[in-house]
Amino acid sequence: LKGAAMNFKKCGSVLITGASRGLGLQLVDSLASGQFSPGKIIATCRNPGNAQELQELAEKHPNIHIITLDVVNQESIEKSVEEVSKLVQEEGLNCLINNAGIKVVADFHSVTAEMMIENFHTNTVAPLMITKAYLPLLKKAASKGGAGGSATMGIQRAAVINMTSLLGSVELAWGERANNFKWYPYRTSKSALNMVSRCMAVDLEPDGILCMAIHPGWVRTDMGGSEAPLSPEDSISFMLSVIGGLTEKDHGSFLNFTGEQIPW
Amino acid sequence: LKGAAMNFKKCGSVLITGASRGLGLQLVDSLASGQFSPGKIIATCRNPGNAQELQELAEKHPNIHIITLDVVNQESIEKSVEEVSKLVQEEGLNCLINNAGIKVVADFHSVTAEMMIENFHTNTVAPLMITKAYLPLLKKAASKGGAGGSATMGIQRAAVINMTSLLGSVELAWGERANNFKWYPYRTSKSALNMVSRCMAVDLEPDGILCMAIHPGWVRTDMGGSEAPLSPEDSISFMLSVIGGLTEKDHGSFLNFTGEQIPW
Repeated sequence: LKGAAMNFKKCGSVLITGASRGLGLQLVDSLASGQFSPGKIIATCRNPGNAQELQELAEKHPNIHIITLDVVNQESIEKSVEEVSKLVQEEGLNCLINNAGIKVVADFHSVTAEMMIENFHTNTVAPLMITKAYLPLLKKAASKGGAGGSATMGIQRAAVINMTSLLGSVELAWGERANNFKWYPYRTSKSALNMVSRCMAVDLEPDGILCMAIHPGWVRTDMGGSEAPLSPEDSISFMLSVIGGLTEKDHGSFLNFTGEQIPW
Repeated sequence: LKGAAMNFKKCGSVLITGASRGLGLQLVDSLASGQFSPGKIIATCRNPGNAQELQELAEKHPNIHIITLDVVNQESIEKSVEEVSKLVQEEGLNCLINNAGIKVVADFHSVTAEMMIENFHTNTVAPLMITKAYLPLLKKAASKGGAGGSATMGIQRAAVINMTSLLGSVELAWGERANNFKWYPYRTSKSALNMVSRCMAVDLEPDGILCMAIHPGWVRTDMGGSEAPLSPEDSISFMLSVIGGLTEKDHGSFLNFTGEQIPW
């Protein structure tokens, strides 16, 4: 499975949102440092001026391009598309990874309407609005049929990857696991993202653009906390193998970082 | 199955949101006119002054109580709880039916962030905030153990029923059906409501309060349109049988109006 990450080498461009820290930063690092580095790694974040670690990575790897993108600001989304257009030109964008997300933690008693809407906006609405805005660039890449001109689906052609969570599984929101993670805003935002992902898969299919949702595991990041079992390096290593190996059969799916299907 | 609607007779009070029209109005009508009328039918809507048909029903049936409730207004929610408290007193509230909902129709190309948030607020956040606000009254009813003092779960004791939709099933958002109903705001709001429903089931269980989500079918209302196959009378007749017959085994479930389970 791990070998499938090599497919990123056949990928002209990958865009990652929320690339200034956590899994987004690790994604950029692993893609840039690996034996399988894609042509262009477009690392976006809200405030590049404060993204010290990302800046340092970009100094080491000339294929990293940092672009400003505030995922909940439509103007910022559209401005980023203009900049990325100039960067990728006629090649289009091969792989969009909607990674930016927040975790608003609130149980039944503490949750408010504002918390629910804030998490929904960033985790559910933003990936949809970003994918809409990048559609022309994704279509451009997809129309070329990918590396070798094959018309199969995959990251070498065009793909939208949504970073979701196991906690977005309604089926699994039951028993002990549900009792341990009573995060109404986060859980609802991720189950809604899974629906967005599935609906987009239906709508992007005629253009040959693959779309799916992946769970990164429970990872030691600012979001995951220090008690999480997985290192960011390992999570990303597993996910790059899964994402690199995606084909038609994975279109519209909800996969674990290890590649298994997760129930909705 | 139909006989289970008789259980509403053992139900001291039922509160219905969005009762001025569509399925909400039909729910009030069927409950008031049937052989199984509950003690108090609390019909809530945003603007009772404009709810002509509901007012007429209330004139015919003295057990209908009309109360103002704007589901997206926290102040209005809390004010309604005060009024309902005076009405039900020490008996508490047996059955809360979160029926109010809107359908924002937009496909991949026309959808905006504002449309997504509007539908999410009314269809997902409101049932959560209303259930939170009514929890003390639901607990009061649940603590009495229901008709005959039995400690089983069901509407005769305490229950939260969320009106959801088949279109909120992520699993079924695929193939022909998905192509025919490309309603991003509505679909995501209902899949998120299913998650809210499931999480609330976990949290309400220790108090003996049943919680589940039900799909009313495709019904000829303002929302469903004139080409829908089901009449409001038939949809409600089926649903009252299902809701009347709910027991522990249905806690946390997603059921069709005919009683079958729907995949998440």
